[in-house]
Amino acid sequence: MANIFERNRAELEDLCKRRFFFRQGSEIYGGVSGFYTYGPPGCALKTNIINLWRRHFIIEERLMEIEDTNIMPHPVLKASGHVDRFSDFLVRDVSDDKKFYRADKLLEDVMEDKLKEKGLAAEKVKEYTLVRNQADAYSQEEISEIFRKYDIRAPESGNKLTEPEPFNLMFPTPIGPSGLIPGYLRPETAQGIFLNYKFCLEQNQNRLPFGVAQVGKSFRNEIAPRQGLTRQREFTQAEIEWFVKPTAKQLKKFEAVSSEQMMLFSSDLQLAGKSAETITIGEAVKSGMVNNETLGYFMARTGLFLTSIGVKPEHLRFRQHLPTEMAHYACDCWDAEIETCYGWLECVGIADRSCFDLNAHAKAAKVDLAFREKLDQPIEMEVLRLKKDAGVAMMKAFKKSGRVVKEWVEKLPQEELKALIDEATKDGKAVRTVEVADDQTEECTFLPEHLVCETKKEKQSTVQFTPGVVEPSFGIDRILFSVLEHSFYVRPKDESDEEKQQKNVLRFSPNIAPYKMTILPQDQRVQRTDKYAELMQLMQSGAALCGHTCTVDDSSATLGKRYARNDEVGIPFACTVDFTSLEDSTVTLRERDSTEQIRLPAAEVAALLDQLCLRRTTWKDAQARYPARSAGYP
Amino acid sequence: MANIFERNRAELEDLCKRRFFFRQGSEIYGGVSGFYTYGPPGCALKTNIINLWRRHFIIEERLMEIEDTNIMPHPVLKASGHVDRFSDFLVRDVSDDKKFYRADKLLEDVMEDKLKEKGLAAEKVKEYTLVRNQADAYSQEEISEIFRKYDIRAPESGNKLTEPEPFNLMFPTPIGPSGLIPGYLRPETAQGIFLNYKFCLEQNQNRLPFGVAQVGKSFRNEIAPRQGLTRQREFTQAEIEWFVKPTAKQLKKFEAVSSEQMMLFSSDLQLAGKSAETITIGEAVKSGMVNNETLGYFMARTGLFLTSIGVKPEHLRFRQHLPTEMAHYACDCWDAEIETCYGWLECVGIADRSCFDLNAHAKAAKVDLAFREKLDQPIEMEVLRLKKDAGVAMMKAFKKSGRVVKEWVEKLPQEELKALIDEATKDGKAVRTVEVADDQTEECTFLPEHLVCETKKEKQSTVQFTPGVVEPSFGIDRILFSVLEHSFYVRPKDESDEEKQQKNVLRFSPNIAPYKMTILPQDQRVQRTDKYAELMQLMQSGAALCGHTCTVDDSSATLGKRYARNDEVGIPFACTVDFTSLEDSTVTLRERDSTEQIRLPAAEVAALLDQLCLRRTTWKDAQARYPARSAGYP
Repeated sequence: MANIFERNRAELEDLCKRRFFFRQGSEIYGGVSGFYTYGPPGCALKTNIINLWRRHFIIEERLMEIEDTNIMPHPVLKASGHVDRFSDFLVRDVSDDKKFYRADKLLEDVMEDKLKEKGLAAEKVKEYTLVRNQADAYSQEEISEIFRKYDIRAPESGNKLTEPEPFNLMFPTPIGPSGLIPGYLRPETAQGIFLNYKFCLEQNQNRLPFGVAQVGKSFRNEIAPRQGLTRQREFTQAEIEWFVKPTAKQLKKFEAVSSEQMMLFSSDLQLAGKSAETITIGEAVKSGMVNNETLGYFMARTGLFLTSIGVKPEHLRFRQHLPTEMAHYACDCWDAEIETCYGWLECVGIADRSCFDLNAHAKAAKVDLAFREKLDQPIEMEVLRLKKDAGVAMMKAFKKSGRVVKEWVEKLPQEELKALIDEATKDGKAVRTVEVADDQTEECTFLPEHLVCETKKEKQSTVQFTPGVVEPSFGIDRILFSVLEHSFYVRPKDESDEEKQQKNVLRFSPNIAPYKMTILPQDQRVQRTDKYAELMQLMQSGAALCGHTCTVDDSSATLGKRYARNDEVGIPFACTVDFTSLEDSTVTLRERDSTEQIRLPAAEVAALLDQLCLRRTTWKDAQARYPARSAGYP
Repeated sequence: MANIFERNRAELEDLCKRRFFFRQGSEIYGGVSGFYTYGPPGCALKTNIINLWRRHFIIEERLMEIEDTNIMPHPVLKASGHVDRFSDFLVRDVSDDKKFYRADKLLEDVMEDKLKEKGLAAEKVKEYTLVRNQADAYSQEEISEIFRKYDIRAPESGNKLTEPEPFNLMFPTPIGPSGLIPGYLRPETAQGIFLNYKFCLEQNQNRLPFGVAQVGKSFRNEIAPRQGLTRQREFTQAEIEWFVKPTAKQLKKFEAVSSEQMMLFSSDLQLAGKSAETITIGEAVKSGMVNNETLGYFMARTGLFLTSIGVKPEHLRFRQHLPTEMAHYACDCWDAEIETCYGWLECVGIADRSCFDLNAHAKAAKVDLAFREKLDQPIEMEVLRLKKDAGVAMMKAFKKSGRVVKEWVEKLPQEELKALIDEATKDGKAVRTVEVADDQTEECTFLPEHLVCETKKEKQSTVQFTPGVVEPSFGIDRILFSVLEHSFYVRPKDESDEEKQQKNVLRFSPNIAPYKMTILPQDQRVQRTDKYAELMQLMQSGAALCGHTCTVDDSSATLGKRYARNDEVGIPFACTVDFTSLEDSTVTLRERDSTEQIRLPAAEVAALLDQLCLRRTTWKDAQARYPARSAGYP
């Protein structure tokens, strides 16, 4: 059965277009799919969501924020794995290679259709469901096999399809004349943070843990974008990388959130075919369902953020990745999913990615990204050290490069040294590639006599490791879309009302509302007075000083119509200047959801608005402070 | 002689790298020129500048803000002229085509060198200066001619150079699989606004004037980027397009800024070899030096914005474009130039671009972007209307397409109809291309008998025109760079001081400072108490609630060293928790520039900080309110 968001979908889509929350990109040129333009209320809403995100995470958690580039050079994305693995499979109509389909999505659709067949055997239902759910996890060989098995055809023409081919989702672009440096638009903001981990660590006085965030555009050249704002080729991410000692993921401030109730959908519950359960994050970490306190802390903070901007708690759940879904390096991963007209939509991913990315970049860029922790008490360790004679033997054997090769061996991490000795002992020799000068390597053949070591006891005052990382990754556009859906409602019709039209309302809380207040002259006679201009200026400048946007609606429509028009874009307060205002400088302030009104001096409006938007006072308090004005007035 | 910013340059560059205001992009991979990464203080500074820009322009001027895409399809940038004309000339070393130079910059350098020759004749000085100043304005033929004339060679090898070739500065990227839709990264944010003019006009209830803004990344594939942050391949723009009736550029609110003093460098003054003069913007508009009030208003508001974030007024001037510099469609153009280590740097361009862009997109996208103004009083006009017989003749002549062609003629604007008749009358026929169906055109030959018209008197209740546009365009990175240079100073050494090092300070005003306050425990004994944690939490949460960032500096360095470290990143206030604090919950607050200190209850710190940052109170007032603490303490 369609959920409430599906039922409201057409209405809300119409509103978003008509009031220009967003429209397809380059619309006057016919539009390009996968690209969207935010119009004035949509852009203001997005800016407000990002500002609140910054306050909730960057300021309150004292994260460092950086701004890296959108265009990144090839080696960075080669190292991160995106050049080789960031692909979807594509199939083409054999008789028209410009007709193409994303293989996994096509497979899902075909299975959906099969599942709708009447009188299906239970075993078939199971089979089709499994294939549908795994569609995006198949390898090239597997998906190719599956396509053959079900004889999947091009949906429009019924033609056969080509073999699935991987299509890289990154947008390539050449840097510099002649494209000497191949580049890509970043597919995620996270990589920019890993590139700068070392410099951020310095700013943190070389201490762990610490968090770095980045807010910005990411780009994915989707094969066949659909579902509007939720799957764009260009979208906004807000990502945090929390760098932490892998064995120290407990967090002191976890206590402050441990009693937060959350709807959790663990992989056990999913595999058992049960539904999500609501428990406290404290219990979830304690029971081991959530891997560690750091992960649990960010899950709780994410929940608090989402509900603070208008996501309804009963439509928010955290779903754990199944063991088969998880990246090989990840140790636990939860998605914050929000229920929308498209079903449960992944809006935030919170993953414990271990040290995969830092290691990959350290290796590719040949930089040392290890963390050295000073020990309070030095520890005594047994270590292998090259004997003097062996060193001399090496100096001779490798001639010109002798000294460099010897130093290379001396600097090898203990495990690698041990492996080298073992190999040489076993096989009589061991070959390694050694960098003997900048950009110059040599194949070195080590004999056992080059590697004779003695065991020494040494005091170590530091330990060395690559930090692990917990990554909360927010899809801002999906969150915005969910907030729109959760804020929308149709106001029950009032029979006595002069307006017969249906009235749509966006119930934005004042902190994210695109515009905080609209100023309405009662009619054009009021509007033409100098006093009106003076009062408007007073309220508007006052609000602007506090950073709040006001609109003015001085059209000739009736007040009722203008209220409706402003309710529709979610403006929480409407301030009417009428004939009485011209005499005593008081105005009427109306609250959107209750439609109740108070009367107060124009000079006090900006300050009250500021208090209401910052949630330092409530509308109820304002009603207690100022006299009511009946709804019929004026 | 080097200006003060040039003299401070090395020092500031070192600071910016060391404290990670910014670094070259992908630095651990060796870096890519023209790309920069903002680190934590740089990113916070940029965010604060953008937020203040939004408040100053979008909120206070009630502009609409939109967010369009970074990737734009080919037709959009073809229409805007960027595909054909957004190029620089490139020359290559004949024996190494991977060695290339931007022709105009190379020419400038060569002329600079010639000008340094001793005992140069006055006439040569004039010649070389002229060539240098015009270097970026030559056509392909002209620059080719000039390169031959001076026999300009590759600077490193002394080899000959290839003929100058145009190199398009846009980054191309294919959209969708098979790159079916060619796209580019936008070279400016402005085009996104023109694309959405029509939808924004609707939101403004079809009224003029109104302004639309966009803040975001732009991309230019510079041939040889240099001068650091000021010429990046990826940079942030904040652009406004103010749409206005071309004959109504007077602005009521101009009065509010008319007495602003501004340093103006008109084209007359430049051509006469004089220096800039300081006059009020009111006088400048009145005398006609600045074309109109709308342009003057935005110049004044730009000046106010720049000085409010720390640009020194004595190093800020507005330079008018010379008639030879201006785009053919522009009617006046002024650059806000800020003096930096690179000389006077163009940071904001404020141009009256007339209706060029809207006309170009209307034509290319075949959409109607004309504005229809209702007249208060209908006017009677003489118009040409096709006679019935002529219509019948056309229907016959053009057969199948007869009706469409006839309607096309009837809808022609009056001037075009007149031109068609004149041509047919003179030459016996006139040929026009008519769109007879979607994507299908026909060459139509009109004979005089198809075009017989009569003159009628008709009442018109609307006039139709394409809006003109005034465009203030801000280069955010250049502004940030200027603010850094204008804020930097070296604190005079104090002999009695325990620290012997030179002390650099960034004198950011609290509104743009990356971090507003640092919290310092006196030493590690204080730091280990619960009371310290409690006080720190109190002040930090209080500040965070108001949206202000605090840092904590609990390293073991001396207080003096820690003050110096925080002055260097421009933190305006430092709050010390000492042994007295543990007893009576009062703390010491130090102001960065005066280094003076007051003592106040920890519970009052956040509120005072908020007032100071919002400029609602001053440090002087705070000093009057709270007792001083002598600098030597504790």
